[in-house]
Amino acid sequence: MRETTSLMLREISEQPAAIERTLRQLAGQRDEIIRLRDHQFRSVMLIARGTSDHVADYGQYIFPVVVGLLATSASPSIAVAYRARPSLEGVLAIAISQSGSTEEIVETANWAKSLGATTVGITNVEGSPLTQEVDLALVTQAGTELAVPATKTYTSALATMAFLAATLGDNQQLLDALSEAPTVMQSVLEAAWDLDGAAKLFDGASTAVIAGRGFSGGVAREIALKLKETSAINAIGLSVADLAHGPIAAFVPGLPVVCISPGKASPVAEGIREIARRAQLTGCQLVTIGDDDELAALAEVHFPVPPLREEIAPLALIVPGQLLAERVAQRHNRNPDAPGGLSKVTQTI
Amino acid sequence: MRETTSLMLREISEQPAAIERTLRQLAGQRDEIIRLRDHQFRSVMLIARGTSDHVADYGQYIFPVVVGLLATSASPSIAVAYRARPSLEGVLAIAISQSGSTEEIVETANWAKSLGATTVGITNVEGSPLTQEVDLALVTQAGTELAVPATKTYTSALATMAFLAATLGDNQQLLDALSEAPTVMQSVLEAAWDLDGAAKLFDGASTAVIAGRGFSGGVAREIALKLKETSAINAIGLSVADLAHGPIAAFVPGLPVVCISPGKASPVAEGIREIARRAQLTGCQLVTIGDDDELAALAEVHFPVPPLREEIAPLALIVPGQLLAERVAQRHNRNPDAPGGLSKVTQTI
Repeated sequence: MRETTSLMLREISEQPAAIERTLRQLAGQRDEIIRLRDHQFRSVMLIARGTSDHVADYGQYIFPVVVGLLATSASPSIAVAYRARPSLEGVLAIAISQSGSTEEIVETANWAKSLGATTVGITNVEGSPLTQEVDLALVTQAGTELAVPATKTYTSALATMAFLAATLGDNQQLLDALSEAPTVMQSVLEAAWDLDGAAKLFDGASTAVIAGRGFSGGVAREIALKLKETSAINAIGLSVADLAHGPIAAFVPGLPVVCISPGKASPVAEGIREIARRAQLTGCQLVTIGDDDELAALAEVHFPVPPLREEIAPLALIVPGQLLAERVAQRHNRNPDAPGGLSKVTQTI
Repeated sequence: MRETTSLMLREISEQPAAIERTLRQLAGQRDEIIRLRDHQFRSVMLIARGTSDHVADYGQYIFPVVVGLLATSASPSIAVAYRARPSLEGVLAIAISQSGSTEEIVETANWAKSLGATTVGITNVEGSPLTQEVDLALVTQAGTELAVPATKTYTSALATMAFLAATLGDNQQLLDALSEAPTVMQSVLEAAWDLDGAAKLFDGASTAVIAGRGFSGGVAREIALKLKETSAINAIGLSVADLAHGPIAAFVPGLPVVCISPGKASPVAEGIREIARRAQLTGCQLVTIGDDDELAALAEVHFPVPPLREEIAPLALIVPGQLLAERVAQRHNRNPDAPGGLSKVTQTI
């Protein structure tokens, strides 16, 4: 096992401060965001790849629930490969890219604008191409991210999406709750958890299933991506609702399964418990994350996370998953900061 | 190895006839579809889970390219779990469900209608709840499907989506090409392929990567689902564009990788070749599907598929994947018709 402190671990721990800085910056752009309301958008289109696509997943829930706007992801391929020309009048297009330099994402944002959309860019790099092309640039203040697996830029972008939706939806309660999220994240970082006990369950594993639903579905996909990047574990992240429609047939004894619940009172909580029960019955190695005692009782290792409103719970729920992926890499004697074949600015092939 | 002919294998072979019957049925509904044009839709919303969701994936490409309408998938969870109320005026909502009885899908279609959408249902069961609730029901004529893994109902629904888009987009050339698809599919079914050679590459595998892009991205996800259902192989199906943004770090020697190309002249062909090259360099076990000699030269086993227009190529590209999943199950001494934990009508938990 490697014992070096990784850049990834350091950047995971920087998240509360990164989000505080990001929210402070966003407060200064509040009026610009409010002016977007004049457009009377009819829907939201999300444009992203990789970790940023898991921020888009989150947008698919927060916009309908908080703003009353349907929000869905569109594949950049319809723009850059197939050159389709749908009308996008009345559409708010949100492009998300940590580097702001992924050409495909910048090109798709420009394509959306040329078809009538109003464009917002969420990126961590001030002055990047994305910031120069969109109608409104929201620049996260995570600071330079050195590890290849994104962590603090992911949660900073999540917080930006939450701020954007809460401001457009004029939801002051949610904005207040969001401002307290860094404190909750800090308590999660300081918790004394059995990370090694959980990481051990991945010894020898070549695959795993990470399951959430709704607001926490993107968290599941993001944890799966971290496991792929840091540890070459070909993990699948998906909704428990999708699991029931086929993939559950691949539950086998010994398979590591992580179930993430946004809290025991959530409308999706029972579905998550049910998948956890099936995993346990099958003899899978079960890890659970969230604020749900009934779920916790099923698990070999449970990571309790203090309750947050479900709309912003992903900010805290992701943290144990990031720490777990980093620890799994260390146990596998891999450097989590520099996965094979990846670089920090990704160009789509 | 099991030697019994499975229901799944029989149903795979019934696909050309199923699609011919479906297209004949749809021809009789042509005027009803044309009348939908009066609504002057501004976008398309797709509603599905499981295999049907891979028909929705296809819709995300064929509608923008052929009809000039943005088409994206919305999670049923925003309706049934979170009870969001976005306006859906001017939206064409297409719900897809083989059984027409998955409550969540029927409920989401009703929710869309109550918010102003016009609803179309694609299902294989005449008189099912979905057909009774939508504004226009398109019933595929695949006949009863007995194997749990969907095959002929999947391609019949794909053909229905293609017919719907080509009719709305008034694209007679595409309709003509679609009518020839069953003949091409029949030739694919009759090809003398090294299925055992390909299936052998999955011996001992607990995971795999299946990659496509654009029109063939849904085919990749569908093949991955068939491998999960029939053989408990936790395969990941995704776009080669998404692979480059992280998941490629999980390419390891020996990993089975399947690359699917819609043809050497496609705008996505080079990206698919590039991922195939990386898989080969890493020492993955590479299977390729499609009409691309350069791609074929990289593979341990290649399944050539006669060229079809890219918009309908998925109808033929899926066939080798279905046959492969069935053969992998046989090699693993599993009954592909009855995967553990699944039933033919799935209710979301």
